[in-house]
Amino acid sequence: MTALADQLRGATVYDLEQPRYHGMPIYPTHKPGYFYALYRRHRDSYKPEQHGPRTSAAGVLTMMEHAGTHIDALCHQSCGLKLYGDVPAETVETPAGFTQLGVETVPPLLGRGVLLDVAGWKGVGRLPDKYSVTGDDLRACAAKQGVEPRAGDVLLVRTGFATLWHDEEAYLRAAGVAKSGTLWAAERGVIAVGADNMSWDVPDERDPETGATLFGHVYLLPQKGIYIIENVNLERLAADRRWTFAFIGIPLKLNGATGSPFRPLALV
Amino acid sequence: MTALADQLRGATVYDLEQPRYHGMPIYPTHKPGYFYALYRRHRDSYKPEQHGPRTSAAGVLTMMEHAGTHIDALCHQSCGLKLYGDVPAETVETPAGFTQLGVETVPPLLGRGVLLDVAGWKGVGRLPDKYSVTGDDLRACAAKQGVEPRAGDVLLVRTGFATLWHDEEAYLRAAGVAKSGTLWAAERGVIAVGADNMSWDVPDERDPETGATLFGHVYLLPQKGIYIIENVNLERLAADRRWTFAFIGIPLKLNGATGSPFRPLALV
Amino acid sequence: MTALADQLRGATVYDLEQPRYHGMPIYPTHKPGYFYALYRRHRDSYKPEQHGPRTSAAGVLTMMEHAGTHIDALCHQSCGLKLYGDVPAETVETPAGFTQLGVETVPPLLGRGVLLDVAGWKGVGRLPDKYSVTGDDLRACAAKQGVEPRAGDVLLVRTGFATLWHDEEAYLRAAGVAKSGTLWAAERGVIAVGADNMSWDVPDERDPETGATLFGHVYLLPQKGIYIIENVNLERLAADRRWTFAFIGIPLKLNGATGSPFRPLALV
Amino acid sequence: MTALADQLRGATVYDLEQPRYHGMPIYPTHKPGYFYALYRRHRDSYKPEQHGPRTSAAGVLTMMEHAGTHIDALCHQSCGLKLYGDVPAETVETPAGFTQLGVETVPPLLGRGVLLDVAGWKGVGRLPDKYSVTGDDLRACAAKQGVEPRAGDVLLVRTGFATLWHDEEAYLRAAGVAKSGTLWAAERGVIAVGADNMSWDVPDERDPETGATLFGHVYLLPQKGIYIIENVNLERLAADRRWTFAFIGIPLKLNGATGSPFRPLALV
Repeated sequence: MTALADQLRGATVYDLEQPRYHGMPIYPTHKPGYFYALYRRHRDSYKPEQHGPRTSAAGVLTMMEHAGTHIDALCHQSCGLKLYGDVPAETVETPAGFTQLGVETVPPLLGRGVLLDVAGWKGVGRLPDKYSVTGDDLRACAAKQGVEPRAGDVLLVRTGFATLWHDEEAYLRAAGVAKSGTLWAAERGVIAVGADNMSWDVPDERDPETGATLFGHVYLLPQKGIYIIENVNLERLAADRRWTFAFIGIPLKLNGATGSPFRPLALV
Repeated sequence: MTALADQLRGATVYDLEQPRYHGMPIYPTHKPGYFYALYRRHRDSYKPEQHGPRTSAAGVLTMMEHAGTHIDALCHQSCGLKLYGDVPAETVETPAGFTQLGVETVPPLLGRGVLLDVAGWKGVGRLPDKYSVTGDDLRACAAKQGVEPRAGDVLLVRTGFATLWHDEEAYLRAAGVAKSGTLWAAERGVIAVGADNMSWDVPDERDPETGATLFGHVYLLPQKGIYIIENVNLERLAADRRWTFAFIGIPLKLNGATGSPFRPLALV
Repeated sequence: MTALADQLRGATVYDLEQPRYHGMPIYPTHKPGYFYALYRRHRDSYKPEQHGPRTSAAGVLTMMEHAGTHIDALCHQSCGLKLYGDVPAETVETPAGFTQLGVETVPPLLGRGVLLDVAGWKGVGRLPDKYSVTGDDLRACAAKQGVEPRAGDVLLVRTGFATLWHDEEAYLRAAGVAKSGTLWAAERGVIAVGADNMSWDVPDERDPETGATLFGHVYLLPQKGIYIIENVNLERLAADRRWTFAFIGIPLKLNGATGSPFRPLALV
Repeated sequence: MTALADQLRGATVYDLEQPRYHGMPIYPTHKPGYFYALYRRHRDSYKPEQHGPRTSAAGVLTMMEHAGTHIDALCHQSCGLKLYGDVPAETVETPAGFTQLGVETVPPLLGRGVLLDVAGWKGVGRLPDKYSVTGDDLRACAAKQGVEPRAGDVLLVRTGFATLWHDEEAYLRAAGVAKSGTLWAAERGVIAVGADNMSWDVPDERDPETGATLFGHVYLLPQKGIYIIENVNLERLAADRRWTFAFIGIPLKLNGATGSPFRPLALV
């Protein structure tokens, strides 16, 4: 085991999480999204005669699961009110969350990650607003990079919008992945996909066949059981041209919740 | 890199996080601690003519940072109103959190972990209520197990109270680590310590020298810069007698917060 | 109008609200119930060169509607999934609350209030734990007091448990009103009923006819359109033997919510 | 007493509260302000064999005290870190709120109210953006209306911005009361002032003498002990030319909080 511990300690670590603060971009339906209040200050507990020199501070967090860098649980989306495995949504919904397919059932993601830097491949710092990354784009980008996503991998797609994290309005106009791109990713057998945007999909797009908005969401989660990772910061990884790496992403076991904030890492 | 990715994928994973739910044990000063409300149900967004078959569900979380399995940031404790590095507490406190030493400054913990199973070494399933694990206990237990915590390791101490996670009252009577145990751990140069209890320390104990309650807190965080991990579940790891392992613990970058929930893993 | 303003200003005011704080009694299903965090302190905004001498402080509240002294909206309860007026519950439920019969539809309650001091009539400071106040009790108490609730009145029933507000466990064993008491109250045509306990009803009781728990809740709200007021403090009013008075109770217009905290007053 | 009860029941009631919902205007420093989540739906508790036909629904509220129509407690503002009565702010601040001058110390406001319809007097539906209502304006408006605020009254000033409650950006540009207007109001000896805007004052203005922003806040609360009421809806009252009326405003006793939502009424 020392071998693995030593490798972990010696690895170069790329932190793929965006910082969390009130004011970071939030998808409209997940507002207010995130609020932290520091209410216990050190001076409050400073009573040397009673507790010696020790004091303590703490805060309270109000947060939607889909705020900041996070992973979607399978229960987050339904197709025709059926969750993954054809579970009828309303049989597993409770006030305290889902009794099946909640985010506590998502295993730690530990394995290979692949980055497809579509913006880089196109030779731009950032794709055009709401640009829709197709399956052909992904295929060509992978070929150019000389990588191939394989079964069990985590596939990360870079649009270049991570640098706009400080600007909600601009960030919410991010490029995303088209239906054909989602299908191509799913065919690779990946365990999870992710992107440096709010929703993997381009919010305004609609699947002409079913009329579904956010095709990736309705396809990957309830139909294929593939997790979606959002608001990943891929800038440093792309700058260093790390197309494959060890990926570590560990959701919290928030019982019954539809997603979890997490801090994914890429190790090389 | 494939080497590391493959090792991660092939490893046996021990999940050290306790499940999170309203009703889990919470330290009195961190009440109410944790509450999740699923308010968007799938049926709410089921409008096939508008969105096709796709529907979405989501909830809202109210949470103190020190609820559930978590890591303490250095700003969580002061010694005489000084934080680690002699930073005066009130110069860095704001309503939105700390401007220095917040949990976003804690690096991902990736390296070697060592388990000292004090309960197991004593031949009991669980140490007596409020038993105080001394430096001698830790030294003897390490010797018996044939392990030695080294600089940079994460040191985990097992009291056996993890099995009482469903019972707040019983769990809050857990054994903890005495002043001498804390000193012994710090002398080893570890980067973080943790235990299967609410507060590493035994809450009622007092350092006779300074009068401080929770000696480990006032010593490790503001004086030594050593992180504290709480409410770790060490049962399976102990059952399998895994005394050393690769440790992965990745706090969220909650800007300015005094701690972060996380899901530590042990890999062998 | 000066007449009314002068009367209001000159009246003796009985404050029927219990104080609100983290730790006050909360019904189990409404936990955590209430939490206030003062996070903006005055010193935080003290920058004389920028804002002159002015500073500001503020906090954040997390609260269930049924915490503390409050009034139930008609949407709070259903009978067989039908709300008042035979509205099917699920046609008016949304993530943001009810589109009909929410607490914003409750008018300010301004009119006559009647107190039936059942504990006083029985000659005890407090009724026995879980004592169930019958219709006969209410009738006899009213006769003894020489009062008669009339159409449009607010009827308040005193059990004597208000003095246990500091002790959740004891308070939750309060006496309440039996089915026959609820029926008697409804026959009087009152606009609202209230009591100095958590739930008007005795939680453990069951209507033998329908099997319903909390008969008053299933009868008054969805069937009769009569509001229920909970956790009223009737001690001073009873001590002064004020059996009738002007009642003022003004719910907040929390759109779609199932109840509202409020501070009812009795004026004489 | 029947007299008063009958008068209350017979009065014409003007509801001065704005509706409360996620999306209503919030002052920037009080964001996110207001969020209600209905998480317990009726169907969740529908188990006829166990509970008969009764079901229950409930939600959870996250709210700043200064969201929506509300009243400021004296502890909300300091002048040079002194609260009303020269109380040093930091001696009464705790994580759970203020130990003195919290909103639970504000009495129910019951007495005479006076409306000065400045917009109406100027012959406009709404004053210009950020118009600053002077003492001369108030004096002239009162003379024109033939009313005179007296000691103990609640003085309400109409800018006409209440109709923009659905539009945060426009509402936050509301007119307010100038330093001279605040001084004139305080000299009348009123118990509270209020306006149909976010902050009584014009946010951008600065007292040339002290440099203070929000002069009304730093003068009325910590120096004069006069309460401030914000986001009052005065439209109907003005349309009916009700210049004086019985005012009822009853804050919640939120222990230690810096303000309270409430629903003020004008009765004629």
